[in-house]
Amino acid sequence: MAIPTESFFLQPGAEGTLQMQIRQMVANGILEGRFRPGEKLPSSRKLAAHLGVSRITVTLAYTDLLADDYIAARGRSGYFVSDNAPEPPSFPARSPDRTTVDWSRAIGQRFTGLDMHTKPADWASYRYPFIYGQADPTLFDSANWRLCGLEALGRKDFDALTTDYFDSDDPQLIDFIARQTLPRRGILAKPDEILLTLGAQNALWLTAQVLLTQRRSAAIEDPCYPALRGILQQSRCHLHAIPVDRDGLPPEALPRDTDVVFTTPSHQCPTSATMPMARRHALLERAEAEDFLIVEDDYEFEMSFLKPPSPALKSLDRNGRVIYVGSFSKSLFPGLRLGYLVGPAPFIREARALRASVLRHPPGHIQRTTTYFLSRGHYDALVRRMGRAYEDRRRVMERALHDHGLTVAGSGSFGGSSFWMRAPEGVDTEVLARDLARDSVLIEPGAPFFSGPEPPGNFYRLAYSSIPAPRITEGISLLAKALASRRCG
Amino acid sequence: MAIPTESFFLQPGAEGTLQMQIRQMVANGILEGRFRPGEKLPSSRKLAAHLGVSRITVTLAYTDLLADDYIAARGRSGYFVSDNAPEPPSFPARSPDRTTVDWSRAIGQRFTGLDMHTKPADWASYRYPFIYGQADPTLFDSANWRLCGLEALGRKDFDALTTDYFDSDDPQLIDFIARQTLPRRGILAKPDEILLTLGAQNALWLTAQVLLTQRRSAAIEDPCYPALRGILQQSRCHLHAIPVDRDGLPPEALPRDTDVVFTTPSHQCPTSATMPMARRHALLERAEAEDFLIVEDDYEFEMSFLKPPSPALKSLDRNGRVIYVGSFSKSLFPGLRLGYLVGPAPFIREARALRASVLRHPPGHIQRTTTYFLSRGHYDALVRRMGRAYEDRRRVMERALHDHGLTVAGSGSFGGSSFWMRAPEGVDTEVLARDLARDSVLIEPGAPFFSGPEPPGNFYRLAYSSIPAPRITEGISLLAKALASRRCG
Repeated sequence: MAIPTESFFLQPGAEGTLQMQIRQMVANGILEGRFRPGEKLPSSRKLAAHLGVSRITVTLAYTDLLADDYIAARGRSGYFVSDNAPEPPSFPARSPDRTTVDWSRAIGQRFTGLDMHTKPADWASYRYPFIYGQADPTLFDSANWRLCGLEALGRKDFDALTTDYFDSDDPQLIDFIARQTLPRRGILAKPDEILLTLGAQNALWLTAQVLLTQRRSAAIEDPCYPALRGILQQSRCHLHAIPVDRDGLPPEALPRDTDVVFTTPSHQCPTSATMPMARRHALLERAEAEDFLIVEDDYEFEMSFLKPPSPALKSLDRNGRVIYVGSFSKSLFPGLRLGYLVGPAPFIREARALRASVLRHPPGHIQRTTTYFLSRGHYDALVRRMGRAYEDRRRVMERALHDHGLTVAGSGSFGGSSFWMRAPEGVDTEVLARDLARDSVLIEPGAPFFSGPEPPGNFYRLAYSSIPAPRITEGISLLAKALASRRCG
Repeated sequence: MAIPTESFFLQPGAEGTLQMQIRQMVANGILEGRFRPGEKLPSSRKLAAHLGVSRITVTLAYTDLLADDYIAARGRSGYFVSDNAPEPPSFPARSPDRTTVDWSRAIGQRFTGLDMHTKPADWASYRYPFIYGQADPTLFDSANWRLCGLEALGRKDFDALTTDYFDSDDPQLIDFIARQTLPRRGILAKPDEILLTLGAQNALWLTAQVLLTQRRSAAIEDPCYPALRGILQQSRCHLHAIPVDRDGLPPEALPRDTDVVFTTPSHQCPTSATMPMARRHALLERAEAEDFLIVEDDYEFEMSFLKPPSPALKSLDRNGRVIYVGSFSKSLFPGLRLGYLVGPAPFIREARALRASVLRHPPGHIQRTTTYFLSRGHYDALVRRMGRAYEDRRRVMERALHDHGLTVAGSGSFGGSSFWMRAPEGVDTEVLARDLARDSVLIEPGAPFFSGPEPPGNFYRLAYSSIPAPRITEGISLLAKALASRRCG
């Protein structure tokens, strides 16, 4: 039996080259059981004419399918579905008729209900996206990332790609971090003091599991990164939220029973404050005197384009009390999911065992691609390019905010990628954000950053990491107008 | 000041092209502070002569460095380290002098000490690797994987690569799994009933966290996948290990208070037994009668090359009691770290929230590359190719095992990728494995698969997934010799 030529049609907007699409149509027809072994395919001439593509395209797709034994050639009579083609299942697919499970009882532990800070997935289609933490396609060095990715897919990296590392990491990436990345933050660490993680989120999560229990006490900054608060709430430890000031976390405000302090000294999240050296030393001294540990999320240290970055807390740590969290997901792109933990070997050992149990290791290909991008110097070039663009955007934004008399609550004297803003009392920035979205302006409401049952509703974050400089002034003026209309109303 | 040409040397065995290595030497010299802004680089002619490379190679490396502003050209006087080049840190790197932390107290929860089933990292250099679960470079379709990876690095996939999905997944991959992968296992599922995971390990871990607490009871197979036992021990639930027979898990042996049963019906791990249909129905009936849940790890169903695979337990499930674990890491390669969970929406919701807190989502690039490899039909072609090779190898192995009178304890009537073996009583296969490694034969001792304080020491696993057929006979004969010498001694 011949398969009718009409069974084939190109879907508008489909992915991949024409050749790939044709291959896929045939393969899927076979896998779904629509085309059966022995059935004859249309000739390449006929199919090409029907689809309106060149004959060589069809021929190449058929050659591909031949090689993979989906189809077979029979001399001059043409192509047929191969007898060795994979068979569709002989049983029909179905979903359960009903459920007899009481899921409210069956679920032993709940994890939903935490603040998950989501942004519209289509943020890039907004005209004024003052949105935080997404990759800007105009700044990212896609070309070199692609080259490094391609190199890491090469024959000599077969092992790096495919290997089951169990609880280990790509030794090349660990070596680069130890010898190049960390020394530039003033940190020396041995390989057994470094663990790769699925981004900073995963690093913070692992740290919380190893260090905290229901009987221990953690201190966080207020406001802070909402997902960190979620992690600590899940760990059920005692949680103290310490209000930050313009210099970040004040060490003297930490309660006496603290076991672990989570802090972001480079750029406090979300206020962008940089902790001064004197306070860093004071924090370390207090940690030693009261025997607590410090988890340093070295948040956005790369974005110190106004002044050189201060040394990391970890580099000032004489007593092995600081656990350092670094991330490539922020400066490269969040979808990368690659970060790392640096800490004393006994701590890293436990975090490594836990990571192995939870997920084994970050995918090998991601590790090796990052290694190449770092070691070829592309990463530093990218960070500098981003810093220059951010500096520009920040200058435009400062002027616009000043011209409209908007109140900056925190701006980071070292750089960063956002302004922390305060709207007049009584303004609910959740509502403001919803209204502005209708004018194609995206801002980030501040309430989720705060601890406590009644967070102030009038803060918001304005990031300049994804909005081109020429759009900033107009976006801010729309924001100012929306705020002004609220003041009168 | 000029940088001496002698500062540059090519390292033997270095990675990347000559051009990349030169770029890297210059960039690293600048980043480490050895080359300072304003210092003059050797001319391309001089450096080319010194390194013994062609002048165009040096010129291309310099052009690259120019573009990234590491170096600047000054008319005819040559190349200089750019004034905008990144600065090295102004503070020296250091590690803590000593630690004043009592880590035995500071660690709140321990995760080390679980059996982590490690293999020698250099297994590929052994001549007879009867080793399980590593990718075989002679079978894997690297060429098409590379093409798909490259396509996923392309401009139109910028978002899929870089986006922060928060708690979501690549919709294209979810769509493919729902419409193509699962129906072939007899399963229909909606997108909110599917969650991507970092391999099967991560899927099992998430499931255990959501369903189990210290007050609940889980049943596992004995022997079973050691990492699953580790996950359940960490969850501190009550754990029952149920001895399997030649048909896998016997449902009648499950204790009355069971809340969750973990099973591998397609190919029991490690015995390779396939659960017959009657037993599958009996298990489901018992689950309904006693209100427990079943976690089905559809382990190696793809490797049913002797008979078509049975329908998944999940496809027979009328009452929504089965949670299904699938993995691409096993059939593609373990370093991929990509698997999935299929279950009722209320369960998936909690697993999704937990995954978001622990790691957010699997890297976007990995998801999209896999989507292409699946949807172009390469995956099915690969599985068939592997099945054919495994069938060959299995036949050779069966003959060799028979010729030497070695005892097969489980072999999987549907296929699989290994034999589960029993050595004579009294043989310690840990010692046997160590001794054989010296003859370049790798086997896997069986004790870690068993629960209980005194596991039998005389079992072992022989996989044929990574050893070429022509080596099998000789490898088995070395194994037989080692066993025979033990019997006499």
